[in-house]
Amino acid sequence: MFPAFLDLASLKAAYAGGLSPLDLVEEVIARIEASDDPAIFISRTPADDLRQAARDLLARAPEANSLLLWGVPFAVKDNIDVAGLPTTAACPAFAYQPERDATVVARLKAAGALVIGKTNLDQFATGLNGTRSPYGAPRSVFDSAYVSGGSSSGSAVSVASGLASFALGTDTAGSGRVPAAFNNLVGIKPTPGLVPNVGVVPACRSVDVVTVFAGTVGDGVAIRRVMDGYDAADPFSKVAKPARLPVSGLRIGVLAADEREFYGNAAYEALYDAAIERAKALGAEIVPFDYAPFRLAAELLYSGPWVAERLAAVKDFIASNAADFDPTVRTIISGATAYGAVDAFEGLYKLEALRQKTLVEWQKADVLMLPTSPTTYTVEAMLADPIAKNGHFGRYTNFANLFGYAAIAIPAGFDADGHLPAGITLFGLSFCDDALAPFADAMHRALAAGMGRERTAALPEASKVAEPDDGLVSIVVVGAHLTGMLLNHELTGSGGKLVKACRTAGDYRLYALPNTTPPKPGLIRDPGFSGKGLAVEVWRVTPEAFGRFVQNIPAPLGIGKITLDDGSQVSGFLCEPYALEGAREITDLGGWRAYIAELKARNG
Amino acid sequence: MFPAFLDLASLKAAYAGGLSPLDLVEEVIARIEASDDPAIFISRTPADDLRQAARDLLARAPEANSLLLWGVPFAVKDNIDVAGLPTTAACPAFAYQPERDATVVARLKAAGALVIGKTNLDQFATGLNGTRSPYGAPRSVFDSAYVSGGSSSGSAVSVASGLASFALGTDTAGSGRVPAAFNNLVGIKPTPGLVPNVGVVPACRSVDVVTVFAGTVGDGVAIRRVMDGYDAADPFSKVAKPARLPVSGLRIGVLAADEREFYGNAAYEALYDAAIERAKALGAEIVPFDYAPFRLAAELLYSGPWVAERLAAVKDFIASNAADFDPTVRTIISGATAYGAVDAFEGLYKLEALRQKTLVEWQKADVLMLPTSPTTYTVEAMLADPIAKNGHFGRYTNFANLFGYAAIAIPAGFDADGHLPAGITLFGLSFCDDALAPFADAMHRALAAGMGRERTAALPEASKVAEPDDGLVSIVVVGAHLTGMLLNHELTGSGGKLVKACRTAGDYRLYALPNTTPPKPGLIRDPGFSGKGLAVEVWRVTPEAFGRFVQNIPAPLGIGKITLDDGSQVSGFLCEPYALEGAREITDLGGWRAYIAELKARNG
Repeated sequence: MFPAFLDLASLKAAYAGGLSPLDLVEEVIARIEASDDPAIFISRTPADDLRQAARDLLARAPEANSLLLWGVPFAVKDNIDVAGLPTTAACPAFAYQPERDATVVARLKAAGALVIGKTNLDQFATGLNGTRSPYGAPRSVFDSAYVSGGSSSGSAVSVASGLASFALGTDTAGSGRVPAAFNNLVGIKPTPGLVPNVGVVPACRSVDVVTVFAGTVGDGVAIRRVMDGYDAADPFSKVAKPARLPVSGLRIGVLAADEREFYGNAAYEALYDAAIERAKALGAEIVPFDYAPFRLAAELLYSGPWVAERLAAVKDFIASNAADFDPTVRTIISGATAYGAVDAFEGLYKLEALRQKTLVEWQKADVLMLPTSPTTYTVEAMLADPIAKNGHFGRYTNFANLFGYAAIAIPAGFDADGHLPAGITLFGLSFCDDALAPFADAMHRALAAGMGRERTAALPEASKVAEPDDGLVSIVVVGAHLTGMLLNHELTGSGGKLVKACRTAGDYRLYALPNTTPPKPGLIRDPGFSGKGLAVEVWRVTPEAFGRFVQNIPAPLGIGKITLDDGSQVSGFLCEPYALEGAREITDLGGWRAYIAELKARNG
Repeated sequence: MFPAFLDLASLKAAYAGGLSPLDLVEEVIARIEASDDPAIFISRTPADDLRQAARDLLARAPEANSLLLWGVPFAVKDNIDVAGLPTTAACPAFAYQPERDATVVARLKAAGALVIGKTNLDQFATGLNGTRSPYGAPRSVFDSAYVSGGSSSGSAVSVASGLASFALGTDTAGSGRVPAAFNNLVGIKPTPGLVPNVGVVPACRSVDVVTVFAGTVGDGVAIRRVMDGYDAADPFSKVAKPARLPVSGLRIGVLAADEREFYGNAAYEALYDAAIERAKALGAEIVPFDYAPFRLAAELLYSGPWVAERLAAVKDFIASNAADFDPTVRTIISGATAYGAVDAFEGLYKLEALRQKTLVEWQKADVLMLPTSPTTYTVEAMLADPIAKNGHFGRYTNFANLFGYAAIAIPAGFDADGHLPAGITLFGLSFCDDALAPFADAMHRALAAGMGRERTAALPEASKVAEPDDGLVSIVVVGAHLTGMLLNHELTGSGGKLVKACRTAGDYRLYALPNTTPPKPGLIRDPGFSGKGLAVEVWRVTPEAFGRFVQNIPAPLGIGKITLDDGSQVSGFLCEPYALEGAREITDLGGWRAYIAELKARNG
């Protein structure tokens, strides 16, 4: 009755089959009690409160699945406010009782989701490994000797071990991606500004992003859409302008040989190579690019003035409570006092200079595909060398928010002995969030690594991300716009693409219009007539190009709907009837191309 | 033979009439020699070099006006590199010999323009008044007791007094606008990033912009277009996406009563009110808006961490050469050492929070119209209180570059006794640079204040800025899309606007198509027929909306060209002839509206 992994599609099916949210919360409570990782949660929604929340949902929306996230249990990283639970940022002395839900939490609750608890994190979201917390270190769900990744450690582990359908993380350097990789999950990292940060404890306020851990790309994107939307109370919130990507023939940028660094983890390198092969098999064009400007930007985040944002976030607190900090976090944050405002602006200059260099690389590729983390470590190894080893995890993540990119991290499979998983991340330019999803989902399905601890689980068909509408419109051309003909450039010049050559339905007649330059045909539907159809071509153009195209068509031609031989109706060339006076009917030639050939033969 | 004011149109006419650039350079040399303001130039192109440049131009492009800026003399603010002349930034100890022209200078020279010299400025472009230079204080061309405005002081005075056709300034806080106001000129301040800063001494590198002083908006925009274009060597250079503004019915935001501050200058306030009346007379809708968030952002520029950018620009030099600074400039720049990186980021947070507040105001207005400077002062008064009085000049300018706006400053006329001029500035969001120009030019012409010292000069017709193409396309609707009819929302919902109700040419027939829902007409042209024409409406929509609209039209309707009663041919609804079988002809009713009325009368 209860799916082992609580992905949205499986849970929705269970609800449709009669499961009640009241049963679900009992199951979640039981699973949490049975969990063998004591470090996942910092606080939990009291069991009775969770039961009450389920009853409240049923009172508000009695019908199963009548809200987008009806009865969906989720966990919240403990630097995001949930009214009724303390916010600690993994620093007990910092804890406060928020009066209101963070904007994202309020939106998710309104859509029917149920908060099960607040999850552990690297203190103040400063870290990528999950060991920097007085509440303990959550562990990889695949081997408790290994780190869970961080800073959103508890969130990732809660989802991977089937305690929640999804969890919220935050991502400044890579905290919403690295734990996804180490726990075989999808990590959705929105474009900064797409999802509001109101009610989130800042790490680096100018580049922080709330993220989603989920089992599938489809789930993650659906959840992110619930959280989306401008909020004027967040200084960095933006009105999104969704960007598009090509629907087919994606150019995928991959690490060139001289920028490959896996810190000796050959298994992870092999998994990256395997992912590249999968992308190729899915029809992508693989393009090595120069990672250097991205790497140099990545280095700025911790080894540059941005660390002052971390200090800005806690400066009053650290002044009085330095002893309450995790020692590594304190070392990092106090380092910021060394930076002056001149350093801050010089950091910005460096970043913008690097951005110009990245634009050269973005000319080569539509999407970048990188290892999420190049390697992983045991908790013991991490604690022995906490800053350098943490830095390894961020090698391919830290640049993303500085440059305003969208990213989706997906599972890339397990090392050779099936022990630990690795991940890859797909990056797109700002507001490519939705556009990245179909390819990310296709890759996740092709790589077949399951969801979280359920490594053999098949990804539900229902959560499949549809190929995006390419936004183009079809047009049937009959005469001078056919391939190779005189006006074909009007289509190709505005980016039009040939879809197919085919025939109209049988009840069309074709005429050669008198006195037209270049010579033009007139196509007329005659429902009583039964012919063989006429040779035409179908092209795809943008609505704008189509609008301009129609605008430029002279009388007596126009655009109506033409029925093709497959029965479909597509916009295409028609002719006003008065113009047929004195026109020669050429229906028997089967199309305009044959007529032109006949004309040429006659004249030549 | 020589126009007193060397605007492009007048100079071009003179060249077309036989004037040679060789004569022009002699005239410019003579005018400079005769100038009564010794503080305009810091260095000049030696007379023989200028003569040689004119000869080189004639060798390269012998035909008059064969380049866009053929033989056009211009001055360059002395913080912008010109190969062969020192760059001083008005600090002799800082001077260096640039090897290359700044990108903008190189582009202007390539277009045929001739550099006549490097102009004085407030040292390191730090100031809005023009008195902070060891090379003296250029004076208002209308009264030498008054400041010229700064920091681009010499540039403005050189153009206003007829020594150059245009001059380059730079603008961080308002240095490309305030001197325009005080010298009766147009100041074009591009969107930051539109014009590259390579070869410009930074003031605040993240917000510096190269500007143009010119006699007309048309000149200024034409010159700016020569300088435009992405340059990867400038970290802040951007690929521009030109923004549009409504072509008619512009909503102009003006100061609400509680944000009016003219520091007691009633004449300037009266000129601002007169400009508002002019805008109204030109058809603009006047909308008071809340200036407070813009003012608070303006205050950040000098009273916040951005001053650290000024220090970043000269930090090595000031360490060794503090005594070489203008004392006021030194005071301002050294103040930056007090700011830490935390302050810098907190300044950014404040700015972004204010940006969100400004977006509420931008919902009310398409363009903001503010006094360029609310008042002016004598050199004596300025020197007595250099920081506060300079601050007054920046009250309505400082926010512009922090928010990435485009701005055009124009002359607003003279105070009551015709003594000193004031200016107004029109602001648009990023990349509205071209879109702002038609209204700015119309205002300049309506305010009739001449050009520079030539206050009675008529603005040449040839430099008039054409109303922009609104980018929309026309569509004739005949039936269910008419105003008030069932499908009219398809037009209004995509932003369509009704242009007019009119009639078709006389040779159209109208039919009520059988079996259509909602009821639809069929319009057919019958060249032999002579009727009274049929009632139709003409709408304007974007090409994209038009494309989608056409895409959604079902058979047997389509879009062709309809001849209207004025003989024009406009896209509009046509009908395939087969569909007329069994249709009632309703041509005699004169239009679809009459038919629907008849239907209703019959059914009701």
